[in-house]
Amino acid sequence: MAFSFRVVKSDKDTLARAGVVKTSHGKIETPAFMPVGTQGSVKTLSPDDLEEVGVQIILGNAYHLYLRPGPDIVDQAGGLHGFIGWDHPILTDSGGYQVFSLTDLNDVSEEGVTFQSHLDGSRHMFTPERSIEIQHALGADIIMCLDECTAYPCTRLEAQASAELTLRWARRCQQAHERLNDEQDKGQALFGIVQGSTYEDLRQKCARDLAELDFPGYALGGLSVGEPKTAMYEMIDAAVPQLPEHKPRYLMGVGMPEDLVDAVSRGVDMFDCVIPTRNARNGSVFTQNGQMVIKNAQYSRDFRPIDSSCDCYTCRHFSRAYLRHLFQAGELLAPRLATLHSVCFYMKLMRQMRQAILEGRFKKWRREFLSLYRNGSGVYGQIVKVQ
Amino acid sequence: MAFSFRVVKSDKDTLARAGVVKTSHGKIETPAFMPVGTQGSVKTLSPDDLEEVGVQIILGNAYHLYLRPGPDIVDQAGGLHGFIGWDHPILTDSGGYQVFSLTDLNDVSEEGVTFQSHLDGSRHMFTPERSIEIQHALGADIIMCLDECTAYPCTRLEAQASAELTLRWARRCQQAHERLNDEQDKGQALFGIVQGSTYEDLRQKCARDLAELDFPGYALGGLSVGEPKTAMYEMIDAAVPQLPEHKPRYLMGVGMPEDLVDAVSRGVDMFDCVIPTRNARNGSVFTQNGQMVIKNAQYSRDFRPIDSSCDCYTCRHFSRAYLRHLFQAGELLAPRLATLHSVCFYMKLMRQMRQAILEGRFKKWRREFLSLYRNGSGVYGQIVKVQ
Repeated sequence: MAFSFRVVKSDKDTLARAGVVKTSHGKIETPAFMPVGTQGSVKTLSPDDLEEVGVQIILGNAYHLYLRPGPDIVDQAGGLHGFIGWDHPILTDSGGYQVFSLTDLNDVSEEGVTFQSHLDGSRHMFTPERSIEIQHALGADIIMCLDECTAYPCTRLEAQASAELTLRWARRCQQAHERLNDEQDKGQALFGIVQGSTYEDLRQKCARDLAELDFPGYALGGLSVGEPKTAMYEMIDAAVPQLPEHKPRYLMGVGMPEDLVDAVSRGVDMFDCVIPTRNARNGSVFTQNGQMVIKNAQYSRDFRPIDSSCDCYTCRHFSRAYLRHLFQAGELLAPRLATLHSVCFYMKLMRQMRQAILEGRFKKWRREFLSLYRNGSGVYGQIVKVQ
Repeated sequence: MAFSFRVVKSDKDTLARAGVVKTSHGKIETPAFMPVGTQGSVKTLSPDDLEEVGVQIILGNAYHLYLRPGPDIVDQAGGLHGFIGWDHPILTDSGGYQVFSLTDLNDVSEEGVTFQSHLDGSRHMFTPERSIEIQHALGADIIMCLDECTAYPCTRLEAQASAELTLRWARRCQQAHERLNDEQDKGQALFGIVQGSTYEDLRQKCARDLAELDFPGYALGGLSVGEPKTAMYEMIDAAVPQLPEHKPRYLMGVGMPEDLVDAVSRGVDMFDCVIPTRNARNGSVFTQNGQMVIKNAQYSRDFRPIDSSCDCYTCRHFSRAYLRHLFQAGELLAPRLATLHSVCFYMKLMRQMRQAILEGRFKKWRREFLSLYRNGSGVYGQIVKVQ
């Protein structure tokens, strides 16, 4: 089945929209959040867990899976879906971001980027063509163009050169994708990535140029890399109007619950971020009243669930006191139960947004959600406020 | 509901028997294996996981739970059952074994044993009375007498003095248990523990003396502490005939699958051991053909399940290659999926033994099982042979 996207309803007050992405492994209702399964596993969770909390799509990292176990093994296993036992949509990133953030030595040329593995120091090269080959072997439903991800801050000249390189690479990625599809078309959709650092006009131009290449979807990359939140929102606002209305928009690596709400208001449809899973493993979970550092001593005799309004397995069966004990004792069940809850929270957040858009009450919902989330209700004890 | 045990069927060829233990949290079909939940969690598994593979009873450690989170917190949470979300039978050990094996400084007197916490070096004392108080607060269905666990080897004089002390402590535990039951009877059954190191006559005498105290169940302690397997079997053979036929017999800290089969043949009904869970976390899982070191490179392209005859979640959904990858990548899902499989294997082993006893074909089943298990079939690649 071919990839498709349809806007079901646009919000009357904001740029928010509810849509449906269709892939050969099932549909994704947008706005959608993709939990990150870097190495072929959303850390601590099984596919059953993910299904139970309503996850419709997960993300895998081409960089990590390329280094270990290697795309040939994944391919032989029937692709990433078969290898990891997840029969629903998957998106893989190109490896670009990891090459620039994880490796010590990376060297960019017109051809591509050479880098040393963060695992064993071995030298490798990703070209646009190689990244697409790898992502074809992995077989995800949505794959991403190789892009150069500039650090923040960077000069206008650097940002411009980088965005232009990313655009040239996008063309090569598209051509490589088409060539490989001629051999075997797995129905994979290749998304382009808008770069341009924090320069509004560069973002606009990059988005416009990519739009001309007619990708089935577009991502905003190089954000949430240290720039102020206001700059991130400006860049979203600069790029979104340049992108076609009928294509999904994916904000990479974002973010906190309030970021998701803001970005949805600005027209973004898809997100991925390690925050819910990573924070959970570190003992901090999300609630409608903000983050709760569940491993804190204050919860040692608190026999209420994390969130009494939550119906996840963790909240149905375990108290804050027990979770706190598990974290204190270093039990492996602790990160698992915390992760399950926080992913459930994110999924519910996305469903709430979608429902509010569909019912024409997104702005009201947003006001209520953010008020509760930013201020805490006090019901949950001392809440760690989100910055 | 009061604790009870009934032998349903005794094997005609061996001392094996199938029975049923009843507790106020449900029944346990014997022979039974208890996965170890040291700190209030069978490492990596949720209560749902345990139920799914047929676990009927788990073990908690009074020593660990006393130090962290503390018996008062567990008591306040509604006992260990409420605290950890496990509404089925639980057994707690007395803390004796941990005091002697985990703490650097421990000092035994007639009164009890003083020791330094392995967590923070703080000093504590367990007397028989204190151990029973703690276990009443924890509220497990089966609780254990405080015993002195001698190291192996130890002299006959040491073993004799130790067994006699254990016997005196058993009387004090029984009295403390009765006193506490007068205040609040939670239907907990207190088991006595036979000591005597590797001295046949000491084991016999200790078992006889304990039998006179009429405990509802008896454990064999101080075995699987480094002595040869033959010595362990001799001690089981020495003690079992001295213990009442209509009381359950529990071999503490044992063991490997073949040990369970041998001990069941010798009249043992209950077991606990960290082997299935600990080995799984280290990447070694159990199959009907022996242990399989799933993290080995030989499995990197092996797309079969661990055991194609196994119907656990792990074997239904994931390949050896994926499990190997998860272990290589340090993913937390790896120990979880491996543990789930190995606990499932142990549960199936116990059910198979029980069924064979009930159907009067235990000896034949034992021969077939051990033949396959000890020799491997070759189907599963290079099997790590059990010693």
